[in-house]
Amino acid sequence: MAIIEATKTKLARKMKAKGVVYKPVENVNLGPDSDESYVQANVKAPRMAGFLAKIFAWFLESRIFGTLLLYILKRNNLIHKTHDCLQLSQLVTNAELEEPPVYVPLHPFEELNEQEVKRINSDLSPSEQVQQAIDCLPLPSEKIVNGSKPSFRYWTIMDYSKAYSSGKITPYMVAEQLVAAIRESSSPPLDMAFFINYDAEDILWQAKESTLRYERGEPISTLDGVPIAIKDEIDCSPYPTTGGTKWLHKFRRCKGDACCTMRLRLCGAVIIGKTNMHELGAGTSGINPHYGATRNPHDPGRISGGSSSGSAAVVAAGLCPAALGVDGGGSVRMPAALCGVVGFKPTFGRVPHSGVLPLNWTVGMVGVLAGTIEDAFIVYAAISGPVRSHDTSAIAPWFNDCSDEIRTCCSQALHQLSEKYGWKTVDVTIPDIESMRLAHYITIGSECTTALSSYLENLDIAESGWDVRVGLCVYGAFSGEEYIKAQKLRSRQMQFHTNIFKKADVIVTPTVGVTAYPILNDALQTGELDYINGAALVRYQIAGNFLGLPAVSVPVGYDKKGLPIGLQFIGKPWSEPTLIHIAYAMQTLCISEYKKPHVFYDLLKKD
Amino acid sequence: MAIIEATKTKLARKMKAKGVVYKPVENVNLGPDSDESYVQANVKAPRMAGFLAKIFAWFLESRIFGTLLLYILKRNNLIHKTHDCLQLSQLVTNAELEEPPVYVPLHPFEELNEQEVKRINSDLSPSEQVQQAIDCLPLPSEKIVNGSKPSFRYWTIMDYSKAYSSGKITPYMVAEQLVAAIRESSSPPLDMAFFINYDAEDILWQAKESTLRYERGEPISTLDGVPIAIKDEIDCSPYPTTGGTKWLHKFRRCKGDACCTMRLRLCGAVIIGKTNMHELGAGTSGINPHYGATRNPHDPGRISGGSSSGSAAVVAAGLCPAALGVDGGGSVRMPAALCGVVGFKPTFGRVPHSGVLPLNWTVGMVGVLAGTIEDAFIVYAAISGPVRSHDTSAIAPWFNDCSDEIRTCCSQALHQLSEKYGWKTVDVTIPDIESMRLAHYITIGSECTTALSSYLENLDIAESGWDVRVGLCVYGAFSGEEYIKAQKLRSRQMQFHTNIFKKADVIVTPTVGVTAYPILNDALQTGELDYINGAALVRYQIAGNFLGLPAVSVPVGYDKKGLPIGLQFIGKPWSEPTLIHIAYAMQTLCISEYKKPHVFYDLLKKD
Repeated sequence: MAIIEATKTKLARKMKAKGVVYKPVENVNLGPDSDESYVQANVKAPRMAGFLAKIFAWFLESRIFGTLLLYILKRNNLIHKTHDCLQLSQLVTNAELEEPPVYVPLHPFEELNEQEVKRINSDLSPSEQVQQAIDCLPLPSEKIVNGSKPSFRYWTIMDYSKAYSSGKITPYMVAEQLVAAIRESSSPPLDMAFFINYDAEDILWQAKESTLRYERGEPISTLDGVPIAIKDEIDCSPYPTTGGTKWLHKFRRCKGDACCTMRLRLCGAVIIGKTNMHELGAGTSGINPHYGATRNPHDPGRISGGSSSGSAAVVAAGLCPAALGVDGGGSVRMPAALCGVVGFKPTFGRVPHSGVLPLNWTVGMVGVLAGTIEDAFIVYAAISGPVRSHDTSAIAPWFNDCSDEIRTCCSQALHQLSEKYGWKTVDVTIPDIESMRLAHYITIGSECTTALSSYLENLDIAESGWDVRVGLCVYGAFSGEEYIKAQKLRSRQMQFHTNIFKKADVIVTPTVGVTAYPILNDALQTGELDYINGAALVRYQIAGNFLGLPAVSVPVGYDKKGLPIGLQFIGKPWSEPTLIHIAYAMQTLCISEYKKPHVFYDLLKKD
Repeated sequence: MAIIEATKTKLARKMKAKGVVYKPVENVNLGPDSDESYVQANVKAPRMAGFLAKIFAWFLESRIFGTLLLYILKRNNLIHKTHDCLQLSQLVTNAELEEPPVYVPLHPFEELNEQEVKRINSDLSPSEQVQQAIDCLPLPSEKIVNGSKPSFRYWTIMDYSKAYSSGKITPYMVAEQLVAAIRESSSPPLDMAFFINYDAEDILWQAKESTLRYERGEPISTLDGVPIAIKDEIDCSPYPTTGGTKWLHKFRRCKGDACCTMRLRLCGAVIIGKTNMHELGAGTSGINPHYGATRNPHDPGRISGGSSSGSAAVVAAGLCPAALGVDGGGSVRMPAALCGVVGFKPTFGRVPHSGVLPLNWTVGMVGVLAGTIEDAFIVYAAISGPVRSHDTSAIAPWFNDCSDEIRTCCSQALHQLSEKYGWKTVDVTIPDIESMRLAHYITIGSECTTALSSYLENLDIAESGWDVRVGLCVYGAFSGEEYIKAQKLRSRQMQFHTNIFKKADVIVTPTVGVTAYPILNDALQTGELDYINGAALVRYQIAGNFLGLPAVSVPVGYDKKGLPIGLQFIGKPWSEPTLIHIAYAMQTLCISEYKKPHVFYDLLKKD
């Protein structure tokens, strides 16, 4: 029972002329009195979009100027210029550290030895797993709110299931409303750009089949007839898998459902289409020059965050209670926080990856976006291996490098949790956070260019957005030595986190450092290079991906503009049940304050 | 029961404009009728040493010319120019393949389900494991030779043990002779350059302690008092660990025995010093400009092979029955073959790596050089985890890309084995061998520069040999994308080998493609760049390291000049007992023909 708070301390005194000399892990103090410094990523790069983005991409793509420019950029910490004396070359390339590299953040699976854990049989079918997950839910949804009535709440999977079982509403009725809502949201004046592909006929056909099952009194599971959307990075019949590009699906044909999609189908879920995403997952805004900038239902003039932008936005807009995303660098949790929904990324290896675009191999995981933590849990049960329930746990905050409003809101939420459940906070230091971010960037960048290399060779680069063109140039600029050095840093951080998790069950941080920022017109065609906001979004994401840890984002409040604020819990490997239990407790305390998004479709409304 | 022979087939028809498009593994025919081609590494680079090597290194090290030169070299397949149309860029960098990368060749440990396997308790102490290994040996050494008396044979560990137990010879007497022999071999006119460091007092002290134990009737194990040498890549008190350099030990202090050294000490072995090696293990000849070219006891004008040159040569010269080496790209097996001794590299992960210089992380393994396969087995038992005995097994030859004499000799040896034991041969095709060699080169090169980066930064490069300076330039020239692509090729080859091992228990090849070549004078100061001979040496080594497979080299004959020829058996993961059993059978058939090396010290001679 513990809450963790990382302290900002003075700048590292471990600098040598060319690179940081990292102390052996066993000599690093992880307590609050540590002299390890928190290096703030003080990004100074100008935002670029429109013509400026084009010029920048052209320069980078030219053989001679590009090489020179990349050399300068790498020296200057790849746009993310941090402290004057701390650069990529110092923190990673020329760093000295003893740890051997860890290439894959695969933690030995352990049955966590926790109190009062109810284990679910992992040999069950997806629909049986869903039922067991529902049996595990600690409280019926009626009791979620302690006394006060929520000002707004999302319809949950249980709401759909009960409505269908009562016969008052059928899956087909919902699907008809849904198709109309998708059409409206996709057209002027809204132009929300939620979807890359949807097929009204396919939706209605699935809903009809489900309706027949309910009529026969034979629904497959609680998910039967429940609409669920799939990020366009995950294979799903009958749609192509574009990855947010104009070209990837031409080279790589979608041959059927991904494993996770198929598991949802086996539960009777109605798959409503392929959601929009940042092109190739290579950005955090969700502004896609080919399929439109996904707009935030809380304020359509603002970004939804990315890369799983559409999956977060459709849930926020009430089109479905849950959607699948993929999280390689916060891509589920960031848009969840910005859109005011739950975002859940399991431990690396927990959800089968087959049928997911291989954009990287060691950082990405399928995750769930949902209106409530219970719904995230149910969908997670359907797509994953074993799940467990847990009813005692602990929480922890991390650090304060975010906007004042986010800090205040997150601190209050934690304070409430602490008051209500008596969970303790311990202060800890997590060293080398900025080094970890850079090492993750090198890893995901190198893996992404390798994954795409055979396509890129045959590609007219003009088919890609300008921000992605810049990204691909930088992604491909790392050396083998830098890649391996990054894996050595991974090894180091995995040891740090193992030690920290001896003191606390979870690490708590704000999910992102800023709330949804506005979508400017010049970004719509070219995409946008906004590394300052990008860095603020990605700040708290890296441990989840680079170290393979499970993490969940829960909405805990709003800023003065009414924009959602998310709180993130990062758990031990394989501790999903603990994490869900804690997130559920957090949601219970906050749900009475939930605001209805500006763009919202009330599919279960009886009118 | 099967013997494998890889067929040379026509050139790959899978070329595209820029890179090879690899077929999915499941579509590749591994049988003898496969249309997969064996691409010969047709090396055309000139041998360089002396002034030419210096000029080449200077050019490579210059910032501008070096970048240009490396670009050209990489296009031309890094000196190893293969077929005109097949280059590094085509086989690896621009290749297209579906397999996800495998970063570490760690095979799930399996208790192989073999017949008549006697398992050894892995909880035993090193000395208990040695005793169990001895109990496992299938035949007493007297019965090794079937009828015919060997013209020459090495004193074995059992010979030492029996001589000591009889009291006629003591460890101290052997040590005195040994110290004299080391002094003689290290001085003109011989100048064999066997050792980088030895300490006569330390040797005599250890031997005295051992003698006292025998006098008390309390020898620790069969290894008590037996001289064993350690490659200067493995930590061993009281010596520094130079890695064959003039500088590495100044940066990285040796803090005590490596795990494997300590295990030998716990058995009572007398550690006789640190053997010479190719500088940083970055070459195959064993010509070291700082500590001298290790000379081959069979012909002191010729190389001993490398990088574990000294460890192979001291065993060949009779100074000890066994020595430890490290094998990251054939570095135990190549010098074993050239010096006419046994070279044994276990499965990746079998021997603890702590206290071994971290020159790479995913290809290197401690291995054993010994006069006989029984002695390799005994020392392996002392330094490793569980070992097992096995008495039915099978063998297989591979391919013919070696000198006529080696091919003839290896074929005859196999034919004998087949005649004697009825073991069958199956023909198979191992695809993409040249791609695997390049992928291994990228891996070991990138890992080596990363491992050394913090040292190299503070190093006066003039302290390194010229061949190593060239090597380090090339090693550091690979991109992150190339490194990952190499790991994808690793994944692919691991699947191929899994499939091949369904058809046969071992893959058999000559150990090296040439016998020991002459040491020329111009190489003595600068080192030598001889990529043609280097490629012929390394040709059959790669699967052992890149795929983590156990492999053993056994002397099976001599060429017309009287130079040793080795045969290599490559086994399934964790199949060391099978491998040792098969190698033992091979040795049994060949030992009667063994020749006494030109330089040989007969330490058990009673005069």
